[in-house]
Amino acid sequence: MFNNIHMPMIEETLKTYLSTIPDGNLKQAISYALLGNGKRVRPMLGITLLESLGINPLPYLNALVAVELIHTYSLIHDDLPSMDNDTMRRGKPTVHIAFDEGTAILAGDALLTDSFYLVTETKALTGDEKTQIISILAKKAGSLGMVLGQIKDIESEQKQISIEDLNLMYELKTANLIQASLMTAAVIGAKKDIALYESLGYYIGLIFQIQDDILEYTLTPDEIGKSKSDELRDKPTYVSLLGLDKSRIILNQYTQKLNHLIQTLGLENTSIHDQIKQLLTRKK
Amino acid sequence: MFNNIHMPMIEETLKTYLSTIPDGNLKQAISYALLGNGKRVRPMLGITLLESLGINPLPYLNALVAVELIHTYSLIHDDLPSMDNDTMRRGKPTVHIAFDEGTAILAGDALLTDSFYLVTETKALTGDEKTQIISILAKKAGSLGMVLGQIKDIESEQKQISIEDLNLMYELKTANLIQASLMTAAVIGAKKDIALYESLGYYIGLIFQIQDDILEYTLTPDEIGKSKSDELRDKPTYVSLLGLDKSRIILNQYTQKLNHLIQTLGLENTSIHDQIKQLLTRKK
Repeated sequence: MFNNIHMPMIEETLKTYLSTIPDGNLKQAISYALLGNGKRVRPMLGITLLESLGINPLPYLNALVAVELIHTYSLIHDDLPSMDNDTMRRGKPTVHIAFDEGTAILAGDALLTDSFYLVTETKALTGDEKTQIISILAKKAGSLGMVLGQIKDIESEQKQISIEDLNLMYELKTANLIQASLMTAAVIGAKKDIALYESLGYYIGLIFQIQDDILEYTLTPDEIGKSKSDELRDKPTYVSLLGLDKSRIILNQYTQKLNHLIQTLGLENTSIHDQIKQLLTRKK
Repeated sequence: MFNNIHMPMIEETLKTYLSTIPDGNLKQAISYALLGNGKRVRPMLGITLLESLGINPLPYLNALVAVELIHTYSLIHDDLPSMDNDTMRRGKPTVHIAFDEGTAILAGDALLTDSFYLVTETKALTGDEKTQIISILAKKAGSLGMVLGQIKDIESEQKQISIEDLNLMYELKTANLIQASLMTAAVIGAKKDIALYESLGYYIGLIFQIQDDILEYTLTPDEIGKSKSDELRDKPTYVSLLGLDKSRIILNQYTQKLNHLIQTLGLENTSIHDQIKQLLTRKK
């Protein structure tokens, strides 16, 4: 999806982390989940933003990659039988299928816990910066963020919800970790703009999800390359709640707001601008 | 179990935390798990240690109570059908029985995540102190600590393991969070002695577990007040591996080491000494 010049440094950071875990089932399950075909969207956004701010990301990789551990844990737990009950992920069996349910739950627990440890192990950051990043990650991932979104997602199945509810769900489930990625980079390189990067992450997440809803509606399953699982489960989408035209209008409004923020932050035609455009112009 | 003079401040801190969670299923499940009949052993140890060091614990309650959120998450996940499959806990149905499995997993995830947020919200601590406490909590709870212990526990069922394996399992599953409690207090009030408090926590955890193994063997189920679930599952114990006499000898050796540490740390006849004695002289 991206010009992957940053992939090697992300993979190296993940492998260094994995090397700290004692050999055994837990390490195998965590490695299996972490070294899949992940696109590394979240750490990539933070790393690229730092570069666009003129800062070398290398000394900050642990803190910038922590969000990928959180994202990976959330996928493992979301795939469990008592949640989305998915058996395949990124072209291979999900962790609870390849191992077992107990191991999958514990691998997720370890990844989540270790993500915070990884931030504390970022030598180039001050104690205050580490604390601020951990606070952001925990808030965006916990009972005020992603986990709350997942509960709302489960509750929304087979139920009529409002567009406001759906919007909040997308914010919590998708935008929150993107916000955390950008805000982590902002703590390092643009402290005064943290709130603006939080808004930027909001629009990236929402646009991504609305596009997803439109694509799911307009493309055939073959074109999307996955089963229309959301539709099959009667999950509400932007299109099902507002129709295609209205969804496209809101998509355009959000895109304008995003572009305005990019301008305000002086990021036009930087590599982070390119990366956001690539992320948000996928055809499937 | 204790002279519970600290219980109200722990309960207040937990309730203040709960008040930050939006109303709904997630909050209900977290409240249900957190406000049971927990003995609050871990936060109590940290609070009492601070007092014995002559420091008022009140400004540090968030950091001292964070370990209780981690402990509670671990109970919720350990009770799941794919783990220990327990239906009752502290005299009421476990979270996945009272709610459902998905909600239980997410309530645990939220508690774990929020525990780190709680540390960042401890205004009396410096950024470096918060970072140090988070690092300790994450290391003792994650892939090098409690989660690793739980994987080893699952793997040990129906399998012959060595006394060294069992000892490591007890260290990871039980001692690690006790160590984290004492070390958190030491970061606040006795930085130069952190390593000694880590040893102290090790012996408290091991003694507690060996006593448990001896009690399970010598008392009837009625006296213990719970089903002999470990025995039913053929789990190895100190007594099953070494016999009763050898177990008692090791228990005495560990108790001597503990007492020596209490002396070294100048804690004799302080309230933390009393509390450790109470914790380790239970009859069932």
